[in-house]
Amino acid sequence: MDKRIKIGIVGAGSYTSGVLLKRLATHPYASIEYLAEVSPYTADDVCKLHPHLKNLISLPVFEFNAEKIAQNCEIVFFSQPAGGSTTGIARLLELNPKIKIIDLGADLRLKEPSLYQQWYKFNHGQPELLKKSVYGLPELYREKIANASLIANPGCYPTSAILALAPVVANKLIKPDKIIINACSGISGAGRSYKEGFNLFIDVYNNFRPYKVGMHQHIPEIEQELSFLYGSPTKVIFVPYVLPTERGILTTCYIEPVKKISEEELIDLYRNFYKNEYFIRVLPLGEYPQLRSVVDTNFCDIGIHIDQRTDTYIIFSAIDNAVKGASGTAIQNMNILAGLDERLGLA
Amino acid sequence: MDKRIKIGIVGAGSYTSGVLLKRLATHPYASIEYLAEVSPYTADDVCKLHPHLKNLISLPVFEFNAEKIAQNCEIVFFSQPAGGSTTGIARLLELNPKIKIIDLGADLRLKEPSLYQQWYKFNHGQPELLKKSVYGLPELYREKIANASLIANPGCYPTSAILALAPVVANKLIKPDKIIINACSGISGAGRSYKEGFNLFIDVYNNFRPYKVGMHQHIPEIEQELSFLYGSPTKVIFVPYVLPTERGILTTCYIEPVKKISEEELIDLYRNFYKNEYFIRVLPLGEYPQLRSVVDTNFCDIGIHIDQRTDTYIIFSAIDNAVKGASGTAIQNMNILAGLDERLGLA
Amino acid sequence: MDKRIKIGIVGAGSYTSGVLLKRLATHPYASIEYLAEVSPYTADDVCKLHPHLKNLISLPVFEFNAEKIAQNCEIVFFSQPAGGSTTGIARLLELNPKIKIIDLGADLRLKEPSLYQQWYKFNHGQPELLKKSVYGLPELYREKIANASLIANPGCYPTSAILALAPVVANKLIKPDKIIINACSGISGAGRSYKEGFNLFIDVYNNFRPYKVGMHQHIPEIEQELSFLYGSPTKVIFVPYVLPTERGILTTCYIEPVKKISEEELIDLYRNFYKNEYFIRVLPLGEYPQLRSVVDTNFCDIGIHIDQRTDTYIIFSAIDNAVKGASGTAIQNMNILAGLDERLGLA
Amino acid sequence: MDKRIKIGIVGAGSYTSGVLLKRLATHPYASIEYLAEVSPYTADDVCKLHPHLKNLISLPVFEFNAEKIAQNCEIVFFSQPAGGSTTGIARLLELNPKIKIIDLGADLRLKEPSLYQQWYKFNHGQPELLKKSVYGLPELYREKIANASLIANPGCYPTSAILALAPVVANKLIKPDKIIINACSGISGAGRSYKEGFNLFIDVYNNFRPYKVGMHQHIPEIEQELSFLYGSPTKVIFVPYVLPTERGILTTCYIEPVKKISEEELIDLYRNFYKNEYFIRVLPLGEYPQLRSVVDTNFCDIGIHIDQRTDTYIIFSAIDNAVKGASGTAIQNMNILAGLDERLGLA
Repeated sequence: MDKRIKIGIVGAGSYTSGVLLKRLATHPYASIEYLAEVSPYTADDVCKLHPHLKNLISLPVFEFNAEKIAQNCEIVFFSQPAGGSTTGIARLLELNPKIKIIDLGADLRLKEPSLYQQWYKFNHGQPELLKKSVYGLPELYREKIANASLIANPGCYPTSAILALAPVVANKLIKPDKIIINACSGISGAGRSYKEGFNLFIDVYNNFRPYKVGMHQHIPEIEQELSFLYGSPTKVIFVPYVLPTERGILTTCYIEPVKKISEEELIDLYRNFYKNEYFIRVLPLGEYPQLRSVVDTNFCDIGIHIDQRTDTYIIFSAIDNAVKGASGTAIQNMNILAGLDERLGLA
Repeated sequence: MDKRIKIGIVGAGSYTSGVLLKRLATHPYASIEYLAEVSPYTADDVCKLHPHLKNLISLPVFEFNAEKIAQNCEIVFFSQPAGGSTTGIARLLELNPKIKIIDLGADLRLKEPSLYQQWYKFNHGQPELLKKSVYGLPELYREKIANASLIANPGCYPTSAILALAPVVANKLIKPDKIIINACSGISGAGRSYKEGFNLFIDVYNNFRPYKVGMHQHIPEIEQELSFLYGSPTKVIFVPYVLPTERGILTTCYIEPVKKISEEELIDLYRNFYKNEYFIRVLPLGEYPQLRSVVDTNFCDIGIHIDQRTDTYIIFSAIDNAVKGASGTAIQNMNILAGLDERLGLA
Repeated sequence: MDKRIKIGIVGAGSYTSGVLLKRLATHPYASIEYLAEVSPYTADDVCKLHPHLKNLISLPVFEFNAEKIAQNCEIVFFSQPAGGSTTGIARLLELNPKIKIIDLGADLRLKEPSLYQQWYKFNHGQPELLKKSVYGLPELYREKIANASLIANPGCYPTSAILALAPVVANKLIKPDKIIINACSGISGAGRSYKEGFNLFIDVYNNFRPYKVGMHQHIPEIEQELSFLYGSPTKVIFVPYVLPTERGILTTCYIEPVKKISEEELIDLYRNFYKNEYFIRVLPLGEYPQLRSVVDTNFCDIGIHIDQRTDTYIIFSAIDNAVKGASGTAIQNMNILAGLDERLGLA
Repeated sequence: MDKRIKIGIVGAGSYTSGVLLKRLATHPYASIEYLAEVSPYTADDVCKLHPHLKNLISLPVFEFNAEKIAQNCEIVFFSQPAGGSTTGIARLLELNPKIKIIDLGADLRLKEPSLYQQWYKFNHGQPELLKKSVYGLPELYREKIANASLIANPGCYPTSAILALAPVVANKLIKPDKIIINACSGISGAGRSYKEGFNLFIDVYNNFRPYKVGMHQHIPEIEQELSFLYGSPTKVIFVPYVLPTERGILTTCYIEPVKKISEEELIDLYRNFYKNEYFIRVLPLGEYPQLRSVVDTNFCDIGIHIDQRTDTYIIFSAIDNAVKGASGTAIQNMNILAGLDERLGLA
């Protein structure tokens, strides 16, 4: 029986695709059939875009060709700036209704099209795609993902926040209208393109700073998913920061509980909630996540503290933004779509 | 008129003293008379302890000798581990009642002696010193400092938190029982001595992590000062983190207001509160502090955001932990004691 | 047919063992049977020593017990400070003459016992082991390794220097008496134990410096191997440096040729020399190695430049000091001993 | 007597100008009269270009206006990309023959105009300026500088290499035809503008690499100055590298002596050569420079080792590329032009 999965990647030159390709290169069943980039980032060898792939993969990178991709690929990853995926995805589905799409960008994540205008400043051209797409967080939606054609791979900050909060939100243990999410990320979250004043070495090194305070585009994504889990609207306060490092997100959630339970009970509740999840590691009492333990892995580490004096839950989570926060979850989703062990290519 | 200030430093080999000495070397009136360290850190030249001082200062470092210091110094800085200053300070005061002490350690900061046992795990041997000491945050207590003999130089985290919060706390604009303080610090806060699992390069680099969650010894100091400003008890939730950098603290305070005002009004209130403070820079609407702007300076930058949807104040502050958070404020205090322009040695 | 390899590791808590264990955890045939450490670094779970191994490996770490290791293991890795391996290795061989040893430390590398006294400052207690041991650089000694019991895994600097120089040295294309080796390493080469003034974050960050100039203990190892390749004595000038990063060595060799050839010819000569070596990547004309391309891989990248005006060869190599410079080569050696594809566990 | 120096800066938004302005802000006699930048980098306040200058300087940044500068300034610093200074300098001299220019760019450094075409790829439009300009390395040319109108402020790599080599070159102690210069620099040498694949955080962090091997534009500058000191042509092999840090250059020179002397004698010769130089620190036997000791200072540290076995001099130097390698030396030159103590503004 042939388990080979024929794969295409649109946006093969992105930082995220570089991480994805490295993992796919050692995946036992992944067969990369088509790599696409916009000019001038096409290349006779993808290693020119990603030197770390030398001796691992050697494939040309073409301009996007919907016909060829539709014909030759079963699962297609999109790694595009906001607004860059919808036309291509719609075209591929038209040409090959059986094709499966995993969109690592933001274009399929929000159910409400008007939010794209508000937060991403573009007019979503294919709102019908949003109805069909499934939010691709395997720990919460594994079964839906297995049967979907369109997977909206979660954002990096939302992954860290939702995994940290899901057990208490889904169990309605907290007040939903003031969930503080303080999230610090390595700069690779900004990708490989120059953003003035933001991602030069001399902007980041010896520095640490908040940005887009109260206006980050991941806010509606986090609220959509938390509200869905909670069953009614939730409100988050979200402050992101740039860490002087390359990889990882450490998120701290400050939340107000609706009833008193002990730290041990809360840890048990998390352990139970995630009991079948290989990639979630709930840390023991008194231990807290750190980036080193998750960088270059697909794990999400969660640590729990209850501040007794003020009756506040403090939930920490740590992920690698480029793995569990992007390419790693994308491979989990691919494995689910293909009926494979979710851990393949991610050990 | 001779403005020369005769200075002693006890604990001259510490990281903090290295920063202090560099600044004193260019201070127009500072005359360093005595440097003390415990064996084996005495040296025929302080440059052996601090290579960056070469060509700036060349002085021997002796064992602590109370008589010599009491005789030759007017102002003495102590930079000692917790519990290491009290005996020496008491002895100096005995020998020379006119001597002025600026303690960069923690031993004079808490008014209630029992808190030392609880948070620092040592029995404070000289509780009468605590009654005489003044909390040395010049922006709040300039006049008391001018007339004091004993200055308790504030801790680095407390400096960043108190300066961020003082205007709203003193004006009773916020609820006092759940002040969230999320504070990220460069590793130099840990000094120069090895702390297992904590400050090796490979512990810190490519990493970011919370530590001492809910149990950091700066909690009682912050609460003491905020409560004093507020006029009745306050409670803080304090989570410190280690940043993968050397210098700087960026603190974020999440607080609940008791009345609605606009961001512009809040910024005005801060500007007014600090209108005579050269070292406090309240940033304009939409701008937030970053470490780069304050590292190696004595400035404290403050940024203000009101999350309208959840009615939450978010106050950011940034300082250099080793300057404004330690040696810089110590020099401000020295200048105040000597009747000098507070900025001398700090430009 | 059972290809399972029963493995022991002595010194399981070292930085190097942490890297080794991560790789072994995904090796299809490695079965870890015994982990040893000295008190107080024994543990009920190796994850306490290496948090990044959580969910990958869960095994106790015992005190060294020669009988148990000799009985239960086929291949034993030693990761010990200089002088720490010889007694244990001799004992294991005595108990089980069929056991295979891969020593990641220095104790088996130098053929001449007196050099240990001179460079490592200890008296080699088991000189007969040196006669039996094979220098474990697979690219040069693959066949000898396959038949050996004792493998002296090469040092990190020697690996980078010897691989950079072997083609021109073995072909006698250069003058052997003044080979300049300028080698810059990430701090992980210093391991996990504190070395005063050397490996705290504040010693390394924002810094770069040479150390042990002309007196590094890897000098005799490099000269031994180059002399062996050349057929008569060679002399190197070796200057190592600490880079402000965790991983990688970039080595530059400045050498004087004995005859004029073009850069293209020299590159061809290297390509030919390493034509069967998967882990050696000879870069094209005008490209030079960088750490990013090799960190966390087992590759050695080599770049070649001839300075025409002064008739000087400049050969660059880059490796990950902890992988190709230690644990990765160790796994290559294990695979060779076990008759497996050399790349297993190293992709 | 008014010692106030009226200063203009052309290219006020550059990284180098940021460092220059910070130092000038505390210089007792510097009075900044005019700041110029090209659109869109003009600003109503220079702090918008350099946030670290807040509370130190507040001045507008205008488009370049030769008339205003010529009228209002005595000393003008140029900080421009290669080829960007010559027209403006010629115009200022025309308008005000008494004006003094300190060019921090490369346009005045090479005496032979054709070298600009060869190494910088532009046609030098004002070759007569080259005849009048003085190479602004105060340690070598203090008297010429004092009487010059045009100062070519040295490049960062040339400063580190020339100061390391001058004593042995000027004394003809070494062979002049194969001087190896291995020089590692922090990324700030690349300034603030984006260079694809070069100075994003993710290009530099966790990385180290050589670049422009054998083709760096500082080669002719170094050879010009060494040849001048030696009295006949010299040839250098120059390999520059990018360090994963912001500031500093550490240079290692490997050179062949023409006669045998001891390390002690060589150190004495350096001490004697630099005996009146405050900013040169020749380290004692067995000590070597490191970046930490010079970063953010105007010092150049020099360390000396003789490899006895191969009869090779190894000379190390360390500077801050942005201070002693640019703005610090520029201020030394300004002080010399103004007849002031060279150390003013540089302590």
